[in-house]
Amino acid sequence: MKRPLVFSPYLNITRPSEHDKRADFERLRDASGIDNLTPSINFLRRLPEELRKANFSISPVIGIFNERPLLISPSARSLCGLSVDIGTTNIVMRLFDMRDMKLLAEHQFRNPQIAFGEDILSRIHFSMMHGVEPLRKSLLEGLNSEIDSAARRASIDVEDIYGVVFSANTVMTHLLLGLEVKNIPVSPYIPVVSRALFFKASELGLQVSPDAVVYVFPNAGSYVGGDIISGILATGLHRSESPKVLVDVGTNAEIVIGTRDWILVGAGAAGPALEGGILSSGTVAKEGAIYRVEIKDSGAVSYETIGDAPPSGICGSGVIDLVAELFRAGFIDQRGKFTDRASVREIGGERAFVVTDEGDAPISINEREIENFLRSKAAMFTSLYVLTQSLGIGFNDIERFYIAGALGSGVKLKNAQLLGMLPALPEDRFQPVGNSSLKGAEMLLHNSSMIEEVEHIHSIITYQEMNTDNEFMKEFPSARFIPHTNPVKLG
Amino acid sequence: MKRPLVFSPYLNITRPSEHDKRADFERLRDASGIDNLTPSINFLRRLPEELRKANFSISPVIGIFNERPLLISPSARSLCGLSVDIGTTNIVMRLFDMRDMKLLAEHQFRNPQIAFGEDILSRIHFSMMHGVEPLRKSLLEGLNSEIDSAARRASIDVEDIYGVVFSANTVMTHLLLGLEVKNIPVSPYIPVVSRALFFKASELGLQVSPDAVVYVFPNAGSYVGGDIISGILATGLHRSESPKVLVDVGTNAEIVIGTRDWILVGAGAAGPALEGGILSSGTVAKEGAIYRVEIKDSGAVSYETIGDAPPSGICGSGVIDLVAELFRAGFIDQRGKFTDRASVREIGGERAFVVTDEGDAPISINEREIENFLRSKAAMFTSLYVLTQSLGIGFNDIERFYIAGALGSGVKLKNAQLLGMLPALPEDRFQPVGNSSLKGAEMLLHNSSMIEEVEHIHSIITYQEMNTDNEFMKEFPSARFIPHTNPVKLG
Repeated sequence: MKRPLVFSPYLNITRPSEHDKRADFERLRDASGIDNLTPSINFLRRLPEELRKANFSISPVIGIFNERPLLISPSARSLCGLSVDIGTTNIVMRLFDMRDMKLLAEHQFRNPQIAFGEDILSRIHFSMMHGVEPLRKSLLEGLNSEIDSAARRASIDVEDIYGVVFSANTVMTHLLLGLEVKNIPVSPYIPVVSRALFFKASELGLQVSPDAVVYVFPNAGSYVGGDIISGILATGLHRSESPKVLVDVGTNAEIVIGTRDWILVGAGAAGPALEGGILSSGTVAKEGAIYRVEIKDSGAVSYETIGDAPPSGICGSGVIDLVAELFRAGFIDQRGKFTDRASVREIGGERAFVVTDEGDAPISINEREIENFLRSKAAMFTSLYVLTQSLGIGFNDIERFYIAGALGSGVKLKNAQLLGMLPALPEDRFQPVGNSSLKGAEMLLHNSSMIEEVEHIHSIITYQEMNTDNEFMKEFPSARFIPHTNPVKLG
Repeated sequence: MKRPLVFSPYLNITRPSEHDKRADFERLRDASGIDNLTPSINFLRRLPEELRKANFSISPVIGIFNERPLLISPSARSLCGLSVDIGTTNIVMRLFDMRDMKLLAEHQFRNPQIAFGEDILSRIHFSMMHGVEPLRKSLLEGLNSEIDSAARRASIDVEDIYGVVFSANTVMTHLLLGLEVKNIPVSPYIPVVSRALFFKASELGLQVSPDAVVYVFPNAGSYVGGDIISGILATGLHRSESPKVLVDVGTNAEIVIGTRDWILVGAGAAGPALEGGILSSGTVAKEGAIYRVEIKDSGAVSYETIGDAPPSGICGSGVIDLVAELFRAGFIDQRGKFTDRASVREIGGERAFVVTDEGDAPISINEREIENFLRSKAAMFTSLYVLTQSLGIGFNDIERFYIAGALGSGVKLKNAQLLGMLPALPEDRFQPVGNSSLKGAEMLLHNSSMIEEVEHIHSIITYQEMNTDNEFMKEFPSARFIPHTNPVKLG
């Protein structure tokens, strides 16, 4: 039977009598047929009255909490749950009705910790001076305020939320819990905790039902966060007989390759450029972001923005399109340098190609930015190449490539292949999976047996460090060209 | 290995290295060799710094919490634990150093709920009008204030207390937890919960270490509380091959008879008189209480008081002595009525025998009070008689009688037997066990494997209602005489 993380079974409970003097809780437990059912104190305080008011027929709220299903409330007006993906830059939150799994609201918002530093390292540095508490607090306040507005929009009360699942990279998870992060960026890169954790919402300060069950995805070390494990869960890669690959480009680019018996993860510190983060005209995928670029034979540039809004910057998939089109049009060479055919302009002291002047400022890319981008794509491709090589297999042996994150949402596969970001394999081998981290969190919220699948993934996953790997350093330089100095390697 | 409820093992933990990147928690868990070890969030927040400060050799505080040993603190200055017996009238609390099990302080104090009613029923009635919260709060405040002063006396900090065990009757347990009690005194007498419960101290509002493990003894129904189960644990009756008996006289008189395979409990609502509670000169066993009475052949009365203080009243064991001596001297007859030989005086409109005039008021007993006392002793004896009869055994088949509570502390066995309270068996069959409820709590604090023994007791215990029992009603009247209308029944 599929049992969500929180559920509310209808129980018709035998009434007390001269011949049946079991206590209220034991009576309910026996009727539920659930092993190890454990009452919260708030539950016990409300039980006798609610039980009698409802004539011993109630639908209590039960949350899976380690091996002990926890009785949270004798009744529920609404039964809601949240899945939350905490990215370094963006947070996505989905509110569900747990009774029919209907999506009630989806909120995407900037991680408020950005006020303490755009990237992970600067936040860690901040915490070394001022502790993690300001970072924890800012994230928590942001979450609570968004939960409140999501609940309002869905016409529920925040106290109707009885289950929450968080997936995030290792540093974001630590900051959510208020755990020290200063050992994470320093060799040998030790997090405080790796295992999956259960908390009551009140322990974390989350403003939902105080006894709501909170599940936090485990990590596999400082560089392989719960978001990756959640993403693997979402793809089902961990149940595959033959090797499959998950490429997840967020603030970092992570490559996962594995089967049901083993999973290898390589992470290249390569992400920001692929997310649009390194460009001076870069932006996250929000309204007004250019996500699609085309250069006509005439040299004219056309583009599309999210929500058809006036252009405000260029996001990850836009950058990939742009660089691929510049190359296709002959405006840049294999090394990413502007050719004579490109019409460039000086911006901020550097030669830049302007996509449009229609925004508040010219939206453009310069040679240094193209170089950064190519370095990122090279790191990503090299990770993928080295990982498969180390396993003695070729790209052709990989049944399926799941493409998640910035790459998974709206990138033109042909352009990514043209640049040598992804192997040159038939299109049907690639499957975009969007925000796989959020999807995994959602799967676990809806089906608590996923908790065991996560344990399985956690037990077989291995992290392979890449940037210091000899093989990586040997292959990396060639991958910085478009598409590669040796296209045979693309598959 | 005997493992206390809270303990603090010394762990020499492998340091992180290039080849060992386990997270701090996983590193500690693996070193501990303890299955299912679970970290509290406070523990995780402190772990990385304390681990490194202590060069990876630490003695974390671990508390048994259901099947999941809980990591409470990375270190402890002192490691203390509390056993608490909450009686309706008196509370006894013992503070231990958990490292050497040394008793650091013992506090006995009145249950502050007495302000809401002397006896259980009047407190339940109060709760029906005003809720249980005032009762819970008053008990909690009393406990916290006594914990604070016990800690002060022992020169420890209240936060050094990491484990607490509570045993109490069913109503007191409910009021400690803030659970409704209004269904307890009404047929079919249904408590909110029976099972043993674990809480973190902060959930109950106890001012000790916030993550301290609190264990609350289970009950076996409204009339068989955790104090009885704890008392059984203390005597070891539940491990006996042949039937043994535990007689516990507190505010109620409870009779337990059992072996390792079955345990029967009968409770007669008979207690207060045996505790000195019904006499106008009655008092609890405190300084100045008369606990020993003798009537010389001359008719002169001699007595002893607790602490040799001026007499302030007469406590349970004093009442038993007094009635037995009145009978022996021929001052009362078999029915408890004053004979012509007794020199009595009119007090409050009733004929009374005066023990002494040395206190602020005459300390005396009148015929109505003697009758009440005899009714109580009759209820107690009849329970014992009916229970053994229902099992088809005689008193002689009972290997050992454990005498606990008011009867267990300082009562002259000969006098109790003279009155027909206890069977007329050789003295070596009787073993006083004092406050067996507190002792059981203490055993569990010191040895967590007792948790399973409690589960065993809980699973085999049965409550036999007495006061409505036909057999009881048939036997009761004869037992109201001194010692009995049919002394053969005394064994």
